[in-house]
Amino acid sequence: MAFNLTILGSNSSIPTASRFPTSQLVEFNSSYYLLDCGEGTQIQLRKYRIKIQRIRAIFITHLHGDHYFGLFGLLGTMHLLGRNATLDLFAPPELKEMIELQLKVAKTKFQFELNFHPLTFGESKVIWEDDQVSVSTIPLQHRIPCNGFLFREHSHKRRIKKEALDTFRVPLQKIPKLKEGADYVTDNGEVIKNELLTHDPRKSFTFAFCSDTKFDPSIVPYIKDVDVLYHEGTFLESERERAHKTFHSTAAEAAEIAKMANAGLLIIGHYSARYSSIEAHLEQARKVYKSTELAWDGRKFEFRDNATG
Amino acid sequence: MAFNLTILGSNSSIPTASRFPTSQLVEFNSSYYLLDCGEGTQIQLRKYRIKIQRIRAIFITHLHGDHYFGLFGLLGTMHLLGRNATLDLFAPPELKEMIELQLKVAKTKFQFELNFHPLTFGESKVIWEDDQVSVSTIPLQHRIPCNGFLFREHSHKRRIKKEALDTFRVPLQKIPKLKEGADYVTDNGEVIKNELLTHDPRKSFTFAFCSDTKFDPSIVPYIKDVDVLYHEGTFLESERERAHKTFHSTAAEAAEIAKMANAGLLIIGHYSARYSSIEAHLEQARKVYKSTELAWDGRKFEFRDNATG
Repeated sequence: MAFNLTILGSNSSIPTASRFPTSQLVEFNSSYYLLDCGEGTQIQLRKYRIKIQRIRAIFITHLHGDHYFGLFGLLGTMHLLGRNATLDLFAPPELKEMIELQLKVAKTKFQFELNFHPLTFGESKVIWEDDQVSVSTIPLQHRIPCNGFLFREHSHKRRIKKEALDTFRVPLQKIPKLKEGADYVTDNGEVIKNELLTHDPRKSFTFAFCSDTKFDPSIVPYIKDVDVLYHEGTFLESERERAHKTFHSTAAEAAEIAKMANAGLLIIGHYSARYSSIEAHLEQARKVYKSTELAWDGRKFEFRDNATG
Repeated sequence: MAFNLTILGSNSSIPTASRFPTSQLVEFNSSYYLLDCGEGTQIQLRKYRIKIQRIRAIFITHLHGDHYFGLFGLLGTMHLLGRNATLDLFAPPELKEMIELQLKVAKTKFQFELNFHPLTFGESKVIWEDDQVSVSTIPLQHRIPCNGFLFREHSHKRRIKKEALDTFRVPLQKIPKLKEGADYVTDNGEVIKNELLTHDPRKSFTFAFCSDTKFDPSIVPYIKDVDVLYHEGTFLESERERAHKTFHSTAAEAAEIAKMANAGLLIIGHYSARYSSIEAHLEQARKVYKSTELAWDGRKFEFRDNATG
């Protein structure tokens, strides 16, 4: 298993020269997924030498501009560079109208198929499955309808106990079934329980993306024991009231959520442009939850698990 | 007179990490005007430390994304930073619908007045006048309706010949009228011709912005003797056929237009992303018209005229 997360933009609504608005690239093995697409995302993708045509699907949390104003340009560039693979786009329904209007006035038609999936809000449901992952929504509380996204690597197969295969003289062609959990029935009709022949599967890797949300413990059940949690931490504690008024979180509140969810790692971002340095965000979050890291533009988090599946 | 032109983006539809899509900031004395607003314009404005709230009016040539996808984000930032001065926006009519749709889904209302001026196409007309400049459209030939813009500094007043004032004993209170071209009539009814008392006014400074256009000599009358001409030069001569097919120009064609128009200085830009270096553009253009310079992101052209008005 290989999971990589590249931060393409780490700021909130007002970008600075070094902190672009929200966008992140998720890689599960060789599959690319884009989460949100703030202005300049395609420029960041180029800067960090990420092949844009490898992006299989794009997920937009909500329609505040700092989370999607880069989408139109990115789609246009995919088209101009000759994409022909289908692109799946998950977003609030109104985005379709915007894309269509923009194409109409430009007298342009994408040469690839854009498969638009309008999202609903307020509940968690599975919206995407491919050979690598399943993705479900996380209902977030923001000023306008907003979904977070939970990526879950597919369930792994049970792992064969090599010594047991010898002990019970299991023919090799039975192995695929054993990995799926079947018992082994000998030619004499004797049943050897699967647990004797296999170890439990490796835990599926999970990543949760909670883009814009007020402090809301009701999301914890959806992200319980997540391996990596990205949770916005727009403000410092001194602006806690402002955070609540604008349906955002402080860094420490993000850490509270991570603690309740028992997240393996918390990554915070979506910093207000008022902060030229973001060190205090880290400090305040780590006081609550030690396993916290900062998002910053270009930072790449890499997770490898070499256990056999 | 002070005229500054800052290149905010110099590339065509596909940006690179160092060449953003089209946008230019024009300064006439202390007044700021923005020409086109490709994706990332607000980031460039910040990078080059240009105060965005000083922008008085924005002019959009046409609705291909590389000329306006940065507008939504820029307007949003103006709003978030507390703008209250009216902003005048000149653009193709459909842009209004896009802005309104985007505001509706974001549940946002600008706190400043956005004065939208829908433009028509195919003829030259004056669309804006303020205390510094008048702006008129230049009909360009592109794949979709497109206007160039001609900025003309206001006519200057005639310049007093100081020695003549003494000779003819002109009272000081007559000077304002003389500057406007009036003759001086003495108490005895004698008429002293204005030409004896004043020099011709300084020539008004002019700047033409021809964003996306095929090679089209029919624009020459509109830009004749312009001081500074920006004309796109997307391609090199080797791609001349591609330039014609896509309603763009080569660098040499831009230079042909500058030559016909007798432009003081030609600036070329809007480079195709296929060129990693743009030196050949300069070389090919200068073979046709020596007074040519390259646009590149962050380059600032400054013109000063200290003659009294």
